[in-house]
Amino acid sequence: MAEYVVGVDIGGTTVKLGLFTVSGELLDKWEITTRKDEGGKYILGDVAESVLDKLTDKNIDKKDVAGVGMGVPGPVKEDGTVLKCANLGWGVFNVEDELEKLVGLPVKAGNDANMAALGEMWQGGGKGYSNQVMVTLGTGVGGGIILNGKMLSGVNGAGGEIGHMQINDDETEVCGCGKTGCLEQYTSATGIVRAANKVLDSSDKPSKLRSLQYVSAKEIFDAAKEGDELASDLVEEHGRCLGKALAQIACVVDPEIFVIGGGVSRAGQVLIDTTSKYFQKYAFHACRGTKFALATLGNDAGIYGAANAILGK
Amino acid sequence: MAEYVVGVDIGGTTVKLGLFTVSGELLDKWEITTRKDEGGKYILGDVAESVLDKLTDKNIDKKDVAGVGMGVPGPVKEDGTVLKCANLGWGVFNVEDELEKLVGLPVKAGNDANMAALGEMWQGGGKGYSNQVMVTLGTGVGGGIILNGKMLSGVNGAGGEIGHMQINDDETEVCGCGKTGCLEQYTSATGIVRAANKVLDSSDKPSKLRSLQYVSAKEIFDAAKEGDELASDLVEEHGRCLGKALAQIACVVDPEIFVIGGGVSRAGQVLIDTTSKYFQKYAFHACRGTKFALATLGNDAGIYGAANAILGK
Repeated sequence: MAEYVVGVDIGGTTVKLGLFTVSGELLDKWEITTRKDEGGKYILGDVAESVLDKLTDKNIDKKDVAGVGMGVPGPVKEDGTVLKCANLGWGVFNVEDELEKLVGLPVKAGNDANMAALGEMWQGGGKGYSNQVMVTLGTGVGGGIILNGKMLSGVNGAGGEIGHMQINDDETEVCGCGKTGCLEQYTSATGIVRAANKVLDSSDKPSKLRSLQYVSAKEIFDAAKEGDELASDLVEEHGRCLGKALAQIACVVDPEIFVIGGGVSRAGQVLIDTTSKYFQKYAFHACRGTKFALATLGNDAGIYGAANAILGK
Repeated sequence: MAEYVVGVDIGGTTVKLGLFTVSGELLDKWEITTRKDEGGKYILGDVAESVLDKLTDKNIDKKDVAGVGMGVPGPVKEDGTVLKCANLGWGVFNVEDELEKLVGLPVKAGNDANMAALGEMWQGGGKGYSNQVMVTLGTGVGGGIILNGKMLSGVNGAGGEIGHMQINDDETEVCGCGKTGCLEQYTSATGIVRAANKVLDSSDKPSKLRSLQYVSAKEIFDAAKEGDELASDLVEEHGRCLGKALAQIACVVDPEIFVIGGGVSRAGQVLIDTTSKYFQKYAFHACRGTKFALATLGNDAGIYGAANAILGK
């Protein structure tokens, strides 16, 4: 019975790594630079070397390690095939097979948003719930769906790509994905700032946001908490869009809990309150009791989840 | 190794039953009346008796029967607990335990729409695809989601309740579920007829539908096929609503195929064509290759699926 497990979270600039006990205690975490030269061909070798060095340092025998879980910033199929990671320069190949050869341990790969969801399920805001949807509100909007303790990758690696659910027919600006009216355009950090700038430009309504050179999501939520009416309207509309989309998602997978993370989630309880208010309005009656929680692992969710994924492989 | 399996589909007026080989051949099918007296307390006893009689008739030993699968018209939890079947008079109880006691065979229960989806996966329009979403367009809109060959029941038995995804903020008429703007209000047989009556009342546009005393979904699709402009617009809008909702669903569970059944699906290829056209428009790029097919088992999908469910229990 293995005692240890390694979690890896590959990002566009750094690779985060964590050494865990199989029961979920983080023993050590560290980072290496993501070498994107030559189509990212050195990344997996660097990861393998760093993992093996750490095991040597800690005097841990490979046979005591359950394996290496790895989150990557792009779609990953059930069998470990990456379908393109533009950020890393990767094309289509099986990252599990590749890293297994290099590290000599079992490997489980998955999309980073799905891994973060697994992490929050294992040791974070969704602990104790094996059916959950995690929503990451950052520059974009990511999602991770966990059913019976396992992540839903989807046939095209697009399971949980909820940021690109189309929620507005009238949008004219184009989303990063090429469509218009995606959830991400309204509920990401970028999205709420876009909405703020629009209303600040098109109305004369007084607001403390007007005194700022650049408006951020944090400042919008802070101003709303202090009673700023224009900011409160923005927070309300943000909650309406997110609550409505989550109600649609509940009609599909009917989870126990929604866990909300990413930079925007630092707004705290107000985000949960507005989102769940509109969720109640739009949800099918059987799902109205679905719980809401904030993510708690922050940037470590990815390594926790990757470690958990290999345990469930 | 068992050779036979029984599938049961409990409806509001009749119970359909089927005797299958474990490889999916339907050997015999029959029906009994659904006795709804006294809160539906006789239904499961009648089912058990009918199943046991059939096995006796056919000289089949119980040890050669894998079990009884059963679809019921309401939400069913993973453990076999029915959360209320208004149609049958049932409250909350575990139908699997109950029928197992009566019939002396393993029982697997599930929502009837989910069972129909399993049936289409096993021997129908979705044969060969273990990740699929089935959409049933009848009086209402039901959904059944199959992931890795198993149905997704959902924590509240509401997995695949896609008819109640809210897709229109401007609706004023109330859906049967109590909300407004549900997918069912636009894409069910009832929904497209409602839309037809509205446009016939509010415009002077010529249409052969005007000569009919009562308009049905079939007549709308038939008129559209013959080039009737008003009917074509209705079919187009139906496809837009359905295609958009299926694109949202693809962002959540990312299936291999959508299988469309129910009365409206008798319209045939035109329904697939319009729906997939709008699906392409609204879908996330990674999911645009998702396949579409018509259901092929008609009213037998439920017994096929119930039989399949017990094999996968």
